[in-house]
Amino acid sequence: MQVTIDFTPDPILVPAEHLPSWEIGAAVEFRGIVREMEQGNPLSGLFYEAYEPMARRVLERHFAELAALHPCAAVHFIHRTGWVPVGEASLFIRVLSAHRGQALSFLAESIDRLKQDVPIWKRVQ
Amino acid sequence: MQVTIDFTPDPILVPAEHLPSWEIGAAVEFRGIVREMEQGNPLSGLFYEAYEPMARRVLERHFAELAALHPCAAVHFIHRTGWVPVGEASLFIRVLSAHRGQALSFLAESIDRLKQDVPIWKRVQ
Repeated sequence: MQVTIDFTPDPILVPAEHLPSWEIGAAVEFRGIVREMEQGNPLSGLFYEAYEPMARRVLERHFAELAALHPCAAVHFIHRTGWVPVGEASLFIRVLSAHRGQALSFLAESIDRLKQDVPIWKRVQ
Repeated sequence: MQVTIDFTPDPILVPAEHLPSWEIGAAVEFRGIVREMEQGNPLSGLFYEAYEPMARRVLERHFAELAALHPCAAVHFIHRTGWVPVGEASLFIRVLSAHRGQALSFLAESIDRLKQDVPIWKRVQ
């Protein structure tokens, strides 16, 4: 599986897509967007920090474990760091696979795991 | 819920995104791509036909039913018709919602239902 992991302080741009084979039947993308209300309080944005070396290692382990459960051809993960205003994306994940079930399961479980043990933190500045 | 349904004979272009509110936290997109091998046979593409008036009515019913189960703010559905070469998308669905679980469930179930009873057919030309 092709794994690409990027952290960027800039607005996330959806990357160009290169199909790794003619056997890709499903492309699924997720963007996590900063909302105005967080637990009942209005925000103008959130501040994200990542401990990138460890985050990268944990994400690579997650993706390898998930690929064994839900075989996929490629995953592209981008997390924005620093200040992210309301309405902009802090997270982008694209998964390519032969069939949609694999891509959707891989995507959903990778987001669940991201929230659990990847060293990325958000705070109201 | 904002519902947009398009059929096009042209390559699908990912439409510009307009967040309907600052309460959107999740954007999920799916593209169904024509694969080279279909049931063990190599293809150069597939030919899609839709009975558009009925397809539109059935899709609107699906989306209304799914929105009652998984509240979402917007769905944008695009299906390409005519000849679609291998490696290009025949289907695009974008779902916007406050939380990712709603958007992912809405998306997965809308694709499942599309395969069941929407009058869109594909054939090897």
